Amino acid sequence: MSTGLPGRVTLVEVGPRDGLQNIDTALDAPFKARFVEALAAAGLTVVEAGAFVQPRAVPQMADSDEVYRQLVRRPGVRYPALVPNERGLDAALACGVEEIAVFTAASETFNRKNIQASIAESLQRFQPVVRRAREAGLRVRGYVSTCFGCPYEGPVPPERVLEVTRDLFALGVQEVSLGDTIGVAVPAQVDTVLDIVLPAFALGTIALHFHDTYGMAAANVLQALRHGVHVFDASAGGLGGCPYAPGATGNVATEDLVYLLHGMGIETGVDLERLADASLLVEARLGVPLPSRVLRALVAARRRRRGGTAASA
Amino acid sequence: MSTGLPGRVTLVEVGPRDGLQNIDTALDAPFKARFVEALAAAGLTVVEAGAFVQPRAVPQMADSDEVYRQLVRRPGVRYPALVPNERGLDAALACGVEEIAVFTAASETFNRKNIQASIAESLQRFQPVVRRAREAGLRVRGYVSTCFGCPYEGPVPPERVLEVTRDLFALGVQEVSLGDTIGVAVPAQVDTVLDIVLPAFALGTIALHFHDTYGMAAANVLQALRHGVHVFDASAGGLGGCPYAPGATGNVATEDLVYLLHGMGIETGVDLERLADASLLVEARLGVPLPSRVLRALVAARRRRRGGTAASA
Repeated sequence: MSTGLPGRVTLVEVGPRDGLQNIDTALDAPFKARFVEALAAAGLTVVEAGAFVQPRAVPQMADSDEVYRQLVRRPGVRYPALVPNERGLDAALACGVEEIAVFTAASETFNRKNIQASIAESLQRFQPVVRRAREAGLRVRGYVSTCFGCPYEGPVPPERVLEVTRDLFALGVQEVSLGDTIGVAVPAQVDTVLDIVLPAFALGTIALHFHDTYGMAAANVLQALRHGVHVFDASAGGLGGCPYAPGATGNVATEDLVYLLHGMGIETGVDLERLADASLLVEARLGVPLPSRVLRALVAARRRRRGGTAASA
Repeated sequence: MSTGLPGRVTLVEVGPRDGLQNIDTALDAPFKARFVEALAAAGLTVVEAGAFVQPRAVPQMADSDEVYRQLVRRPGVRYPALVPNERGLDAALACGVEEIAVFTAASETFNRKNIQASIAESLQRFQPVVRRAREAGLRVRGYVSTCFGCPYEGPVPPERVLEVTRDLFALGVQEVSLGDTIGVAVPAQVDTVLDIVLPAFALGTIALHFHDTYGMAAANVLQALRHGVHVFDASAGGLGGCPYAPGATGNVATEDLVYLLHGMGIETGVDLERLADASLLVEARLGVPLPSRVLRALVAARRRRRGGTAASA
């Protein structure tokens, strides 16, 4: 029954940006650059490394220019940065960013609360950003939040997801990532959204971005694989939301997806143990266990190996 | 793509037995009976309520007879008890148990470490237990541990799972639950095992018992549903293993499966909010958050509703 799935998946690592952005513990630029380098060294070929947004709104990303300047880039690895406007683009270009991501939502209320603009206004704002980025030879990605449900509006019509995705491609973005921002999606809903959205675009240009708030992310990825989707966003260790708050909305952990995909015979190019090492750099700095179940299981297995005790079950 | 899935699933709630058995905090029999009653009141139709095993080995189950005596049974609900031998059966019969479960494993090493017997010896020991139970009009369930991997032996051949399952049915059990005791299974492996095991038996007689150690349980259930399996074990709140130990092997949470199944349009008869209330009884008593992601999300949502604050995402 596993036939027909993609043979290879590209994981877009969003930990250093989406994962860290809400974390209060200030991490210095050298540390963040080292984290990005460790993720690339683990085999991830796309690592979102920072954001050029209002420093007051997202203090953790205030030194993204430093991160990009210090980062030792690996050949073949892309390091996109989140850019909300032309000023952000200028800052990104100034420190050598080669790929950017713009972001809007499928739900008006969420977009207004998140970036103080209607969806139409945000798309208008991105127009010169995407145009100038493409002229400068940059690759451009678009994020659509709340594609599977909105914390304010509830259900989001898939037609709205299709519409916003189409608008982003019309602006000139090369890939659109559909986000389950609040982690409510179930596999049946993945079917509903993908049945409407996928036929309108080239397959490799639609990525999915799941959160594991309700523990459904792996099941949703499995379902999306059946539709042929082969680009998924994930966050090392499950970084995202706030690890200090039980029940916080969390990005699906890269470790969990690597475990699933490798177990399904699908290549990712990622070395799971080295990926765990990268996550543990952050875990050690934050002093709290990251939520990834696979990371926790790997840590327990390492402890057993060190202690020489047998596994319990 | 969701067509062809079962329209209804039976969840076998194992929280009061499999979930509580490794928890050090001693819970009194009236509390445990109340927990079982709350689970049945939430709509669960099978609630494993205790075990008649060595009190020294599993102190938490030492008062299972009291639990069964105090329990106010609901019509239409089954309350199986784990029984390892004839002495356990006698004790179960003495307090009115109407359904029992016997347990062995697909891996020799695990079985030896777990119950100090070879698989063949354990089956031999169950022979009079199952015969007498059936003669007394009891329903009998069989558990097979380590069907997807053994902590000592590693991979377990699916042919071995088939063989042990066949042996259990030959003894007279009416249902066999295949357990992923260490939570390592991925959906591709679910295919492999079910492709070999399912054709040999009537479909409704094979249940699956997943652990969420690697975060794969929901994806594995989704895959098993595609094979037509419609009986799944789960533990309220994700009770099981030890909630005090990060990374502990944990039963898949009943809440998480109910969320998945209802989201797929599959009936369970369970009221998710009342189920959460039952889990929160135990959580309050233990004083630590239970691992179910859905429970955590429901608790966060209740807090937001009480506080009147908007959801964040």
